[in-house]
Parts: sequence; C-alpha cells; structure tokens
Amino acid sequence: MAGQKKNFPKWLADRARHVESVLDNFLPEETVPPTRLHEAMRYAVLGGGKRVRAALVYAAGEASVVSADSLTSAQGMALDHAASAVEMIHAYSLVHDDLPCMDDDALRRGRPTVHIQFGEAMAMLAGDALQPLAFELLAQMPIAPALIVQATELLARSAGSLGMAGGQAIDCISVGVALTRDQLQIMHSMKTGALLQASILLGGIVAGASSPTRTGLESYARAIGLAFQVADDILDVTSDTATLGKTAGKDIAGNKPTYVSLLGLDGSRELLHALRDEAKAALLPLGITGGRLLDVADFIVQRDR
Amino acid sequence: MAGQKKNFPKWLADRARHVESVLDNFLPEETVPPTRLHEAMRYAVLGGGKRVRAALVYAAGEASVVSADSLTSAQGMALDHAASAVEMIHAYSLVHDDLPCMDDDALRRGRPTVHIQFGEAMAMLAGDALQPLAFELLAQMPIAPALIVQATELLARSAGSLGMAGGQAIDCISVGVALTRDQLQIMHSMKTGALLQASILLGGIVAGASSPTRTGLESYARAIGLAFQVADDILDVTSDTATLGKTAGKDIAGNKPTYVSLLGLDGSRELLHALRDEAKAALLPLGITGGRLLDVADFIVQRDR
Repeated sequence: MAGQKKNFPKWLADRARHVESVLDNFLPEETVPPTRLHEAMRYAVLGGGKRVRAALVYAAGEASVVSADSLTSAQGMALDHAASAVEMIHAYSLVHDDLPCMDDDALRRGRPTVHIQFGEAMAMLAGDALQPLAFELLAQMPIAPALIVQATELLARSAGSLGMAGGQAIDCISVGVALTRDQLQIMHSMKTGALLQASILLGGIVAGASSPTRTGLESYARAIGLAFQVADDILDVTSDTATLGKTAGKDIAGNKPTYVSLLGLDGSRELLHALRDEAKAALLPLGITGGRLLDVADFIVQRDR
Repeated sequence: MAGQKKNFPKWLADRARHVESVLDNFLPEETVPPTRLHEAMRYAVLGGGKRVRAALVYAAGEASVVSADSLTSAQGMALDHAASAVEMIHAYSLVHDDLPCMDDDALRRGRPTVHIQFGEAMAMLAGDALQPLAFELLAQMPIAPALIVQATELLARSAGSLGMAGGQAIDCISVGVALTRDQLQIMHSMKTGALLQASILLGGIVAGASSPTRTGLESYARAIGLAFQVADDILDVTSDTATLGKTAGKDIAGNKPTYVSLLGLDGSRELLHALRDEAKAALLPLGITGGRLLDVADFIVQRDR
C-alpha cells in the first residue's frame, strides 16, 4: 500500500503518456482532409491536460477485476477506447466553453485557446466533431455489444442536457446570481461531476464489474466528482495563471458562484476532505482497501493545478 | 404502384406528424431544469421541418422487410428512436450553422433562429446537448445490442469530421473559392449526404436488412444524398424566402459554390434527374420495384421547399 502510494505519481504520469499516444492514434491525421478541422481537433485534444478522466477509467477498470493482471487484452484495448472517448468529450466541452459567446477565454493549458488559434467557426466545428468521434470509439470497443450499449447510454447521458451540457447552461444563467449550496452542488454535479462519474463507471462497465461493484463505484464517483469541483474552486483563488495553465481568478472576475464564495476557503477545504473520506469509504464494501482509486481520491485533494 | 404513388404525400405527412409526436416525447419537458436549455432544444427540433431524414429511416425500414406488416413492434419502436436520432442531429447542425460565427442567419423554418430567440450561448449548448441525446436514443432501441452498436458507429461517422461536421468545415473554408465539380461533390456528400445516407442505412440496420440489401441501400443512399443537395441549390435560386422558410438566395449572397453556379440551372436539373434514376436503379437488384423508397426519389426531384 505504501509502495503503491509512492508509485502513484509515476502511474498517473505513465497513464497520461499512454492515453496521449492512444488519442494521437485515434484522432484523424492532420494530412487527412478537411485538414484545417483535423488540425483544430488535434490541437484541442493533444498536448496537455491532466488526463484525470482517462486515469479514472483505467483506475476503475483495474479495480473492477481481481488484479490488474486479469484484465484481458481486449478489455485493455476497450479501456483505451473509453479513456479516449471521455477525454474527447472533455476537450470538446473546453473548446466550446472558451468561445466568446461563453467564457471568452484566450488561454487554456498554457496555450492560446482553439478559437484564438483557428477562428470561431473552426473551434465550434472541432468540438462538434469530437463528440461523435467519442461515440464511434465506444462502438468500436472489442467487448460484448451489450456492454458497449451500456457504455454509450452512460456517456450520452453524462454529456447531455441532464449532465455536462445542462450544468454548463445553469452556469451560464447563474452568472451574478447567488446560489444556495444545494443549487451550486446540482450545477457542479452536472457540469463537472457527470463526466467524472461516467469515467469511473465506464471503467467498471468495460471490465465487466458486477452489479454491487458498480453501485459502490457510483457512490465513490459521486463524491469524487464533487471533490474535483471543490478543489477547482479552491485552486481558482489560491493558484496563479502560470501554474494552472488557464486564467486564474476568473470565477471571481466573472462573478460566478463558487464553493469558496459560498463556504470560504477553510470551509471549502473541510468539505473537500470530507468528500475524499466519503469516496474512500464507498470502496470498503467492495473489498477495495488499496489501489489506484484510493490514490486518485488523495490526488484530487492535493493537486495544485 | 400508382395508388401508392398517389398516397405518398399522405404517407409523408403522416410520418412527419408521427415523428413530431415521437420527438416531443423523447425531448425533455420544458418544465424540467435546466428549463431554458430544454426550451431551446425543443424550439430547435419541434414545430417544422420536412422530416425527410425521418421519412428515409421509415421508408428504408419498411423496404428491408418483406412487407410493412412484418416489422415487429420492437422494430417499429426502434425506427422511432432512429428517426428521432437523425432529426436531432440534423436540428443541432442547423442551430450551429445559423450562429453568427457560421452563416449568421436569423430565419429558419419561417421563425427566428435559436440564437435570435435564446441567445448564442444557449443555442450552442442546445446543439451540444442534442447530439448526445441522439446517441442515447440509439442505445435505448429495443433490438439486438449488436445492431445498436452498428447503428451507433454509423451515425457517429456520418456526423463527424469525415461526415457532416467535416463537410461544414470545407464549406466554411470554401467561401469565395472556385471549387471543381469533384470538390463540390465531396463537400456536399459530407455536409448533407452523409446524414441522409445514414438515415437510409439506419432504417435497414434496425429492420435487420441482409448484407446485399444493405449494399443496395448504400448505392441508393449515395445518389439520393447528392440529389437532395442539387435540389437544395436549385431551390436557393428558384424559390423565395416565404416558401423556403429560410433565407432564399443566401448561397449567391454568401458567394458559396453551388451546383447552379457550376452547372447552371438546366445542367443542375439534368444532374438531379440522372441521380434520381441512379437511385431507383440501385433498388432493382433488391427486388424493390415499388414502395416508399422510389416515391422518396421522386419527391426529392419535385419538392418546392
């Protein structure tokens, strides 16, 4: 356990590198027409990002079988597809979120945003084209069709109007509005939590997790999804633009409701730790007392970007 | 056959009414939060449109079994899902296409476009949320999971960077550029043809079409997809805004390459008739000598909006 913990940053970096090369492979080449669109799609997805969602897919996949060794090679490939799919959905949402009609942000992962680099029309289309590519990748997973269908429905729901896109809409409408903690929690559970949760459950589905394991993963995922957002809100005020690779302090500047504005910095940190403990506790009934999912919970609390 | 032809407008109107009520049922209610987003999604999808894509799903589904009666009730439900899915993808593409950073159009189906009515951010998010809803509907079809997976991959490809979104990107880049007939054909086969073709093949997949039937449907679909675009280009110059329900003459105003600008009006009409004959000929080996698919081919040549 102690050794595993020590190795977690290495595992995470290794998974990030791995999914980067997998994404590189799944994305259409820049030489394939329409070249400008494919350039924009690759720019949007590759070369950065923490790959937290991909890591969650792999961690949950590994946790859902007896040992990491018992993942079949087909399941391993399917995890690559699922990890790439969630990273593509995440990347598309960032591209659209950065557009002038939304957050109007010029910096992302330390580089000009996609619309700054390629123009607004191409940025919108790159996002539009990444979304079906994610579903195509799920459809091509080398596992039982019934599991693919479950994965597709899950990802679709998490990205839709009751998930990520819906949370984005509430966020848009809520600028300058004082939200209650419950309202803030609903917004974030949709905007950020839904895709994080889907990442965890996708790992379980691909690895053929049993129904009780899935239930445990769902509880873990709910707490982790919220913890991630609370950590994001804290970082927005405690970190700087260079470290974050995106504009720091933009929630305050945009007059957006956040956990920090609602609970203060100390209150937000308390909530973050409570959610980490809740996430870990959800894994106990599954007999998961070690492994990457626990490490992920700690990582989210400790991350600095 | 003659009777069937006579009844085609009635059948088409009946299918359009039917899919309208199915879409109404599948779209989240306006009272469900986020209400503004759901209003925008419903506004984008409901209350208009020729529903040609939905009609193609049903027509191909009916053609792929021995008689319309032999579609099982599960297959009938699955066709509703598939028809709604393609209409949602089509509707999302129109919403994004009308945005200021794309075609900047204020009128669609005789009404203000979604961003005029709901603002740009909500229009973009409505489109973003319609896309996963389409894939969710496919995942929920009451047919064999292996067929759902095929349908999902097909729709995803047709909507992606090598299909609809890719065609849109080429269209953006080609404003004011003189395209060859081959380039124009590639652009349209992606922008408009891909989803029309997918509609036809989805009907076949859902109805369990045999491999030779699918091949025939593919040839039919290629010709029909192109015919539809040629007809659109002709209508852009021969019809008026009131009849079209969208801005007439906008291709010329936008300096966009069209079949009419390339081949002239007569040349375009000749091409249109040749494509109709090609589409019909592709059905002969399937033993389809009557039925809706032939009527659809005639309809596309004769439509006035």
